[in-house]
Amino acid sequence: MKRKAVVLLSGGLDSATAAAIAGSVGFDLLALSFDYGQRHARELQSAKAVAQALAMSEHRIVSLDMESIAPSALTSDIQVPVDRDRGTMCSDIPSTYVPARNTIFLSYALAYAETSAAFDIYIGVSQIDYSGYPDCRIEFIRSFEQTANLATQAGVEGPDRLTIHAPLINLTKAETISRGLQLGVDYSLTWSCYLGGARACGRCDSCKLRLAGFEAAGVPDPIEYETGTLQTQ
Amino acid sequence: MKRKAVVLLSGGLDSATAAAIAGSVGFDLLALSFDYGQRHARELQSAKAVAQALAMSEHRIVSLDMESIAPSALTSDIQVPVDRDRGTMCSDIPSTYVPARNTIFLSYALAYAETSAAFDIYIGVSQIDYSGYPDCRIEFIRSFEQTANLATQAGVEGPDRLTIHAPLINLTKAETISRGLQLGVDYSLTWSCYLGGARACGRCDSCKLRLAGFEAAGVPDPIEYETGTLQTQ
Repeated sequence: MKRKAVVLLSGGLDSATAAAIAGSVGFDLLALSFDYGQRHARELQSAKAVAQALAMSEHRIVSLDMESIAPSALTSDIQVPVDRDRGTMCSDIPSTYVPARNTIFLSYALAYAETSAAFDIYIGVSQIDYSGYPDCRIEFIRSFEQTANLATQAGVEGPDRLTIHAPLINLTKAETISRGLQLGVDYSLTWSCYLGGARACGRCDSCKLRLAGFEAAGVPDPIEYETGTLQTQ
Repeated sequence: MKRKAVVLLSGGLDSATAAAIAGSVGFDLLALSFDYGQRHARELQSAKAVAQALAMSEHRIVSLDMESIAPSALTSDIQVPVDRDRGTMCSDIPSTYVPARNTIFLSYALAYAETSAAFDIYIGVSQIDYSGYPDCRIEFIRSFEQTANLATQAGVEGPDRLTIHAPLINLTKAETISRGLQLGVDYSLTWSCYLGGARACGRCDSCKLRLAGFEAAGVPDPIEYETGTLQTQ
């Protein structure tokens, strides 16, 4: 029987790539997505499409009541910033930061893993492209892994020790895209835009990082953007 | 202005005592409770009463969708064990264990703390009376604290370093009760029973630990139990 891995699947291109990597090393994939009142609920449709394309054996979507505790741009009416340059984007904690988000996501992944006899969790964070998010750094991931092992019955070295895999942690967006294309990821199924329009806006931080990544990888982004967006800016 | 502390408040006697300790050292208290479809929703009423009695300045109740990911005795139809002796109770991970529960609770507390400029979190766990729960041990608490600091902007030593306080960690139930009584905690407001009856059952693990604690502390438990319960067994 294949070993199971829980994969945090947002519907974005990073988590789709992390999932494909987990599949490529032979794991039976259990997808976990969150519905936390984000504007980009559109992402959840993409998460479902990606889970299907990668033949994941389960896909659970957990409702998170984040809004009552931690309002931020992704969960409330604060304006999503657009047209920012890379310097501004990466120098501060962005206003789109959801407090403790990856800690909460990984905690649920831990619960899911524990109830499924899975000892591997995949998360598609990168400390290269998202330097503004403290919970995307490898130090955080390693520390959470330690905490997770202490929190559960595993807790010891050996085959049942829980491992948090962050295969994109040192990859740029372009390298992530190249790796995903090698593995046959269909990026037309993914969604990155912070806004929830019919097409991606091309102007929010997430769209700009995505577009810059495809450009640097030397391949076209297969999704459609609002007319008039200059994709290479 | 008083420093704020987030207090995980279940409505049970441990968290009420931890809250009173936090108040006694001068913190402005922000209470955090969870509604996770547990049978003992009765606890939430107690949490509200305790928050009011301790004059907490905020009380947030977050809905948790635990059931879809981690069914267990507290969230589903599995039978809550009753009439178990202390040896059986403490030798295994109990069936009432909610996977990764304290990790999830602390993750939300971290989000709440971060959005409230609080750098202190109180949790009423004890590694003495709940040896069956891996996430009640001091090693887990210290590891989560480390992870929390890496997850957030704090992340450094100094006044803004986040601290997880577990003031009951080495106290027996009796010692917790004695400490709480010194601080004026009104235990008649608290609720421990795993079942959701009008009165506590006196037979589940939680009732038995509570009753044994009051007995060892040499004081009567002020709540009512089902008629016929032998409180001192």
